Amino acid sequence: MHRERIRLPSLMSKVMSAADAASLIKDGMTVGMSGFTRAGEAKAVPKALAERAKAHPLKISLMTGASLGNDLDKQLTEAGVLSRRMPFQVDNTLRKAINDGSVMFIDQHLSDTVEQLRNRQIKSVDIAVIECVAITEEGHLVLSTSVGNSASFAILAEQVIVEINLAQPLELEGLHDIYIPTYRPTRLPIPVLKADSRIGSQAVKIDPAKIVGIVISDQTDSPSTVLPADSETQAIAGHLVEFFKNEVRQNRLTNQLMPLQAGVGTIANAVMTGLIDSPFHGMAMYSEVLQDSTFDLFEAGKLDFASGCSMTLSERKHDAVYNNLEQYKPKLLLRPQEISNHPEVVRRLGIIGINTALEFDLYGNVNSTHVGGTRMMNGIGGSGDFARNAHLAIFVTKSIAKAGAISSVVPMVSHVDHTEHDVDILVTEQGLADLRGLAPRERARVIIDNCVHPAYREALNDYFRRACAIGGHTPHVLRDALSWHLNLEETGRMLSV
Amino acid sequence: MHRERIRLPSLMSKVMSAADAASLIKDGMTVGMSGFTRAGEAKAVPKALAERAKAHPLKISLMTGASLGNDLDKQLTEAGVLSRRMPFQVDNTLRKAINDGSVMFIDQHLSDTVEQLRNRQIKSVDIAVIECVAITEEGHLVLSTSVGNSASFAILAEQVIVEINLAQPLELEGLHDIYIPTYRPTRLPIPVLKADSRIGSQAVKIDPAKIVGIVISDQTDSPSTVLPADSETQAIAGHLVEFFKNEVRQNRLTNQLMPLQAGVGTIANAVMTGLIDSPFHGMAMYSEVLQDSTFDLFEAGKLDFASGCSMTLSERKHDAVYNNLEQYKPKLLLRPQEISNHPEVVRRLGIIGINTALEFDLYGNVNSTHVGGTRMMNGIGGSGDFARNAHLAIFVTKSIAKAGAISSVVPMVSHVDHTEHDVDILVTEQGLADLRGLAPRERARVIIDNCVHPAYREALNDYFRRACAIGGHTPHVLRDALSWHLNLEETGRMLSV
Repeated sequence: MHRERIRLPSLMSKVMSAADAASLIKDGMTVGMSGFTRAGEAKAVPKALAERAKAHPLKISLMTGASLGNDLDKQLTEAGVLSRRMPFQVDNTLRKAINDGSVMFIDQHLSDTVEQLRNRQIKSVDIAVIECVAITEEGHLVLSTSVGNSASFAILAEQVIVEINLAQPLELEGLHDIYIPTYRPTRLPIPVLKADSRIGSQAVKIDPAKIVGIVISDQTDSPSTVLPADSETQAIAGHLVEFFKNEVRQNRLTNQLMPLQAGVGTIANAVMTGLIDSPFHGMAMYSEVLQDSTFDLFEAGKLDFASGCSMTLSERKHDAVYNNLEQYKPKLLLRPQEISNHPEVVRRLGIIGINTALEFDLYGNVNSTHVGGTRMMNGIGGSGDFARNAHLAIFVTKSIAKAGAISSVVPMVSHVDHTEHDVDILVTEQGLADLRGLAPRERARVIIDNCVHPAYREALNDYFRRACAIGGHTPHVLRDALSWHLNLEETGRMLSV
Repeated sequence: MHRERIRLPSLMSKVMSAADAASLIKDGMTVGMSGFTRAGEAKAVPKALAERAKAHPLKISLMTGASLGNDLDKQLTEAGVLSRRMPFQVDNTLRKAINDGSVMFIDQHLSDTVEQLRNRQIKSVDIAVIECVAITEEGHLVLSTSVGNSASFAILAEQVIVEINLAQPLELEGLHDIYIPTYRPTRLPIPVLKADSRIGSQAVKIDPAKIVGIVISDQTDSPSTVLPADSETQAIAGHLVEFFKNEVRQNRLTNQLMPLQAGVGTIANAVMTGLIDSPFHGMAMYSEVLQDSTFDLFEAGKLDFASGCSMTLSERKHDAVYNNLEQYKPKLLLRPQEISNHPEVVRRLGIIGINTALEFDLYGNVNSTHVGGTRMMNGIGGSGDFARNAHLAIFVTKSIAKAGAISSVVPMVSHVDHTEHDVDILVTEQGLADLRGLAPRERARVIIDNCVHPAYREALNDYFRRACAIGGHTPHVLRDALSWHLNLEETGRMLSV
């Protein structure tokens, strides 16, 4: 049974039900699960764990790569299983629990989690639950649609539960490049020199004696929920393509651009799709999540190679890619998120990083996470890993939200995830602000003139004028700096216009 | 004349007066000058430039490594020479001009400036003015007490003016390790594997035909203005030593610790001095500025090696070090600031980064630069380069300032330079908060309990309680979040206690 999936015969005896495997997870444990942006998460064991907790309550600390699919964070939250969660999530039920303070959420740069684990700076992983397509003859793990933090979780955990997911094709084998940085103080450079550098092994090397349970599952990843481009996301893409063209004219880029990274979600995906109708070609991606747009760019003949740490596709795209996996495989690589997002590699390659802002301010500080300065949306994700070290740190957003009740450009952001020092380019459907080499007062001018929605432009100009009259390197009217957020909280609109 | 200082005979004809050299700097030029933290700045030419501008006004963009000594920023500001200035400064007169908006100041991570220059993302350097102890037989530049950005300025500039400073001993030759990252897209790893890795050349390799003027000067660096330790800085050092001891007990550090970085100034210097009376030994520094404490640690037999990008000593320490330079030289290395601060190297080595905060908030966000959210003090300097990628990102400050009118711990910082994601440890004379692996509400608890001055503790507890009652992952009472800063602005005190 499943001989091609479990190739080390001595492990056959470890096959068990999801419920039995879930019972190996004890109250108070720290659990490291596979899964990154709804791809490759362990599916059967967390579901069984949520079931079990209804009758036999228990609490765990849960670490993943990033977000889980199949409503697992919802089910685990509703079952009261989560006491702590890191480093990222996107689930509505869990989000509520985080914001009411019942789940302690640690919002981290996604390259940092396993670095902290390896250095024993956060509580160690007791048990890892990892989705795989196969276990090799050596007992090594062949991961599925995401690498995320799975390799380090499996290597550092005391015990490992493997979910062999029959719904994930065996053809995924060979797609992974597993490299773990050596230990300090004798750590060596990470040898990624280009987006397509292969530096590691195809499977995660662990001692098979650590495998305490194998569960056979058969459930697909949740499809991505990316929305199709609209006129505003197309306008954002258009501004960026024009900007890149000018960078080529100025000899700061070639028509290959530099390796591209795009954040998860509708806007970033639309921006990447916008590169189909551009003069650029022979491009590469060195990114986190490979989305629909990656494969659209392959099909358009624009993209030569894509490196990521997970693959998250829509229903539309899923079959087209999976039915042609052998054709795509030579152009794809999935790495640990520590490597896909590593500051060393991002700076060396000179990434063009395109990420989504929740809001930004007059001076180019970006809020990626907190609504009204308090309520967590998802988490910073990899945006900080990329923006700080990128050749170009680009943030995109629509200029207004909620039918104009909210301006995405504000006097002062209510929470800072990316400081003015780390932000080069801001883009809304209104236009693009190039902040490179500008002082704060100059940044405010180009942001107001290029990015703000017309309904808010005069109010921001007025704030900026009053702030400059008071003075300061970064002028603010402290009494009014957060007033737009206060108005929103109290009246449902940032301005009574 | 000066044959041992100017060893390429054909360059002798380039020797000229400072005034003649200054006349090579034209209105509108971008000028790259040597100098980092009042060490190794070009001294005669900027002084002559300020003189000339009194009679013949001109404006330049001035880039340096970091701050200049000998009141040069003051003189250049008063003469109206500076239209733009980057990436760091500490001068009172220039600070006023920055804050009234008459000088455009670009506050950058100190590893970033030459990366942006190399990629032509900021205006290129027209002329470099570099202090040297000598020019070699090949016409290469032997720098003095700082490397800073001097190497890249000289390499990238069209023209180079060299100041040969006779007051800087020739024995400095051999102390420098000049390595410039290769160009993308074929950039290679930076081969620093340990604090003492020597990876480059002793002199800056340029085409001597670019040298358009040589000025002989004879003026020492300004002494550092670091104050002696007081009971509060000693208490901060004491808390950190206890913390490190516990890290050793927990097997997260050895008695060698990890390579240390300490920010410039009195508190960081006092913390380093505090390591003299500690069980740690065989330590190394991989830092920016080597201060008095570096040499105190050498003398105490605690430190094996120190890598930096400049040396800034007090009058007390200057003679002791310079009279024994040959003894110290095997234990010292001065690198370009791009390398001393490089994210790749900082992450690889696992630096312990100790930097000074102006203020921090309940959740661990740090303001390093802006008083009242608006007025620039100095600049972020290298603190971001180190904190983001450190093994331990530590920020230190006294819990109160201005005789208690100001609390350094506030509900919400008025400006963010280091986000909650990048801050591991906060220390005041009151105690130490270990934020690793904690969610925001947990961080607030340990910060209030450990770092806040007793006079402000109840007020912060009250704010935190009211914020938690409203809810949110990072609870805030938005209406009151900046009220302490407003009170300070309006009444001279943060609280009327």
